[in-house]
Amino acid sequence: MEQYQNLNGIFQALADPTRRAVLGRLGRGPASISELAKPFNMALPSFMKHVRFLEDSGWIRTRKEGRVRTCAIEKQPFAAVEKWLSEQRAVWEGRTDRLEQFVTNAHKKERSE
Amino acid sequence: MEQYQNLNGIFQALADPTRRAVLGRLGRGPASISELAKPFNMALPSFMKHVRFLEDSGWIRTRKEGRVRTCAIEKQPFAAVEKWLSEQRAVWEGRTDRLEQFVTNAHKKERSE
Repeated sequence: MEQYQNLNGIFQALADPTRRAVLGRLGRGPASISELAKPFNMALPSFMKHVRFLEDSGWIRTRKEGRVRTCAIEKQPFAAVEKWLSEQRAVWEGRTDRLEQFVTNAHKKERSE
Repeated sequence: MEQYQNLNGIFQALADPTRRAVLGRLGRGPASISELAKPFNMALPSFMKHVRFLEDSGWIRTRKEGRVRTCAIEKQPFAAVEKWLSEQRAVWEGRTDRLEQFVTNAHKKERSE
């Protein structure tokens, strides 16, 4: 039923404005933790929880060089969200198609009678 | 910074496989609570929590007629998710455009020297 075991985490990650803002920033290019944290009025340990959540759910990768940890965005989760949306859309469209089919068939039946 | 105050709830609602499955079912057309609950091995009060979460976050509307509560999908949250995705995509594309601009300008500069 569920091809993305990780879809729970992928959506959960987006259910927070700090995490969405971090993804928005990383879309412009990689950044260090301290650079990412700057716009938020938040203690570093709290901010790090958000970073770890984004990393664990697959939205970002991080790399430590010396004392600096750099974060970069991953695009696979975007593709997973888009796939889920397009699957939902396909269900509605199938529904519309079936409705059109029904109307067309009813019309044909009327004409042949 | 955030045009959808409700984006937290919209994404939170999707972070659960039961709720995603209910939305998938409702994409095919409205259904009663008992029809929706059937495929899930879940006590009704637990299932109702998911239904209420979907309703509170704006994904579905419900209507009670006599003893039967019918649920129907709302499409605005899908549009909100799609808008968020396309905004992210615009950021990357802006980034790619800037990179292309840089490469093109560097190339022009080289040629004019």
